[in-house]
Amino acid sequence: MGSEAAGSEVAGSAVGSAAGSAVGSTAGRATDPSVLDALAAVVGADHVAAGASVAEDYAHDEALSIAAQPPAAVVRPGSTAEVAAILRLAAEHRLPVTARGTGTGLSGASIPRPDGLVVSFERMNRILEIDTENHVAVVQPGVTLADLDEATAAHGLSYPVYPGEYGASLGGNVATNAGGMRAVRYGVTRQQVQGLEAVLPSGEVLRTGGKLAKASTGYDLTQLIVGSEGTLALVTEATLRLYPRHPHQATVLAPFTGVDEVAAAVPRIVASGIGPLILEYIDALTMGAITHAQDLDLGVPDQVRESAQAYLLVMLENATPDRLEEDTERLGEHLVSLGAVDTYVLPGPAARRLVDAREKAFWTAKAIGAQDIVDVVVPRAAIPEFLRRAREIAERHGSFVAGCGHAGDGNVHLSVFETDPDVRYRLLRELFEAGMKLGGLISGEHGVGRTKKRYFTELTDPVTLDLMRRIKQAFDPAGILNPGVLLDPVSG
Amino acid sequence: MGSEAAGSEVAGSAVGSAAGSAVGSTAGRATDPSVLDALAAVVGADHVAAGASVAEDYAHDEALSIAAQPPAAVVRPGSTAEVAAILRLAAEHRLPVTARGTGTGLSGASIPRPDGLVVSFERMNRILEIDTENHVAVVQPGVTLADLDEATAAHGLSYPVYPGEYGASLGGNVATNAGGMRAVRYGVTRQQVQGLEAVLPSGEVLRTGGKLAKASTGYDLTQLIVGSEGTLALVTEATLRLYPRHPHQATVLAPFTGVDEVAAAVPRIVASGIGPLILEYIDALTMGAITHAQDLDLGVPDQVRESAQAYLLVMLENATPDRLEEDTERLGEHLVSLGAVDTYVLPGPAARRLVDAREKAFWTAKAIGAQDIVDVVVPRAAIPEFLRRAREIAERHGSFVAGCGHAGDGNVHLSVFETDPDVRYRLLRELFEAGMKLGGLISGEHGVGRTKKRYFTELTDPVTLDLMRRIKQAFDPAGILNPGVLLDPVSG
Repeated sequence: MGSEAAGSEVAGSAVGSAAGSAVGSTAGRATDPSVLDALAAVVGADHVAAGASVAEDYAHDEALSIAAQPPAAVVRPGSTAEVAAILRLAAEHRLPVTARGTGTGLSGASIPRPDGLVVSFERMNRILEIDTENHVAVVQPGVTLADLDEATAAHGLSYPVYPGEYGASLGGNVATNAGGMRAVRYGVTRQQVQGLEAVLPSGEVLRTGGKLAKASTGYDLTQLIVGSEGTLALVTEATLRLYPRHPHQATVLAPFTGVDEVAAAVPRIVASGIGPLILEYIDALTMGAITHAQDLDLGVPDQVRESAQAYLLVMLENATPDRLEEDTERLGEHLVSLGAVDTYVLPGPAARRLVDAREKAFWTAKAIGAQDIVDVVVPRAAIPEFLRRAREIAERHGSFVAGCGHAGDGNVHLSVFETDPDVRYRLLRELFEAGMKLGGLISGEHGVGRTKKRYFTELTDPVTLDLMRRIKQAFDPAGILNPGVLLDPVSG
Repeated sequence: MGSEAAGSEVAGSAVGSAAGSAVGSTAGRATDPSVLDALAAVVGADHVAAGASVAEDYAHDEALSIAAQPPAAVVRPGSTAEVAAILRLAAEHRLPVTARGTGTGLSGASIPRPDGLVVSFERMNRILEIDTENHVAVVQPGVTLADLDEATAAHGLSYPVYPGEYGASLGGNVATNAGGMRAVRYGVTRQQVQGLEAVLPSGEVLRTGGKLAKASTGYDLTQLIVGSEGTLALVTEATLRLYPRHPHQATVLAPFTGVDEVAAAVPRIVASGIGPLILEYIDALTMGAITHAQDLDLGVPDQVRESAQAYLLVMLENATPDRLEEDTERLGEHLVSLGAVDTYVLPGPAARRLVDAREKAFWTAKAIGAQDIVDVVVPRAAIPEFLRRAREIAERHGSFVAGCGHAGDGNVHLSVFETDPDVRYRLLRELFEAGMKLGGLISGEHGVGRTKKRYFTELTDPVTLDLMRRIKQAFDPAGILNPGVLLDPVSG
């Protein structure tokens, strides 16, 4: 290991985020030969890289608005015991530690510190169990959604959370409380996580929950760690809820001539009890961009398309084809009664391509030059008002926003087009404030990470922030886990 | 207020549970005239009682195995601001504070300290909003399940958690993460709580979540407070998820000749995707006791009843009568294929009485002399093995256990008949250990409270306990909230 070149400008022991007593005493640097040797002794020399040997990929996730930053070193553990040994070393040398799944996050939460370690879970990628009796999967953090989908399908089961990227890892999904289109029916990651194994910054191994549908036995540590963005503990195993896989699906597209009508229809669809699998709204611009990008013909006549301001995309699923057909018909009638110009039941291939294109809307936004994306969550019924205010805010700044969203659960995705960073900061801050005034929060599913930390710490009330900081302190007194992310005052 | 007699033997400032720096400095006693006057100034003299004026009800909940204990004083706030003022006073004088809803809990978590205050939420009993667009109710903690059921029914909506006692308060349900029979379909209280207002021991008011289906914006403080048994904060408002109310229900009773067969059938029913509203098992002894107590004739022929070792009770619900009938038929066939002797679709009145009697099984157990009840939760598929081990443990101690349970979510209720307290301690400890070895936890829905604290602190691993204590410290550094409950080392 000594032969690997040390990075040139890595900072020293300057973690010092949370005050508190330091775990270790000997401050060091991740690229000190003694540290690298010690890491190599834990995971094997093949699984440590430092300085110039660190692959470019470890320097970023998919966040648009933040620069890549290589870590001082990367280490790839193969077991929980190795993760514990790495954290003991990191604590001893006060090294910042950033966990990484497959790097598909959108908030910069896995962008490391220049003086820190990336702990990459790519080798801990085993599905440990598909338990068909208790309907749970037990997975290591490096397992991807694609792997889990394949493994559950073989048993007629399904893990329903799909944030639009099958390459995402379950570890990352747990860390960000990932959502996606099916949340309106199944909930987000939080609702699926029944138990965790996680390593505390001290190197102690914590086990929470289990294959249990419920519990009332002490504080819910599972839910505290879900969504904590790698700042409290490193998840090494998750027990996830599975569901029967429904074989029959139908997809209905409904154009509306006004954005308000489409938004107003959403609570009524949810209230109907029809239980949609997905319930998305897509504005006309976004629909134009994704159908153009995918060369998709949805069979909507030109005249209807030209008058449409927004669309609802609704997917139903059922165990039996008869009930699916009945529900699809009922849904169509309901949509027209709620103001849809017409409804189109999309044939299988077109439906799959449209849903896929919608899932990839982020990439479309990136391709057409959006400078940032936001995923404000508001009460479902507040979507029309939030969209009105968002348009007004954008116009006032001479900027432009367009988007789509998980209408069923109030999660609005907006692509933000504004090249001036100062204007963009004010625009985003006003968007977040508008969402919060309507009872919402900054992020519905992407997380705060580095990209939204400034807004989060500026706009969240001090009682909440102080309490979160004390909780962080309870887990990580030396502040070694993911400094610079979420609520950590360290810059960058 | 000075005219109310002070309790005679109340202890002084001996809270001192969590170490940490004390919030206040002037140690006092809840019955000091100056403290009572200050409390009266906050809530009005009519809403403070001390010493002999404290009604007997405030000394206990419904836990079987723990003695009543009157508090030094009771205070009944009418608003969040009053709760905050009370907690500031309590912090200043280091008074133990125990929150109380309607006192229907089963774990002694609302039994106060002799030197402490009970904060009773009986006056904070308003339903602040039934939001039909976002499908949420906003309630004060003193609202009962009966009140909420009536208010939601008027809108065709439903709050689905029903722990078997309509007199229970929502505040208590949130504090214990209450469950009940419908959890197999809708989840427990935790899954319904979307936001909270809560007062920290410092008197600061915390607001978490909101009318939001999801969020990924910092640590989930909502879920941390749910199930924390009044040890972290006092909940003053909850935002709860509502669902469309299904008008059509059917109830099927299926006797089995073996306990193992009934337990083995459970995962198969869940896997069938039929989505039962309730899925209960009832052993023959418990069924005999509850049908006898209620004088219930279920139409099961004598011969079948005599051979039955256990029953499954399954209730289905649907928006349409046709689908309900179809599902009921399918369920019946499925149950027989899984080994049921026969199936009986119960007529409405008999079904309601049986379900009601099952819900009141605790009272039946109490009436026939059970010394304790436990509600161990295990993985659903581990129920047969847990029941085998429970019988073996009881036999070895010359004791007797019988019960029923929320089979769909692995929550086993056992009535424990053993008069010797030392034997009962060993018996319970072995029952809990057996459950934990099978991947379970001590309580599925009643909570730890005072009754199970000894077992919880003895059997939980130190890493978990230490972390929970540090979290407690982050919320309540002076340890004034519910000392003696959950993980607090203070005895009693």
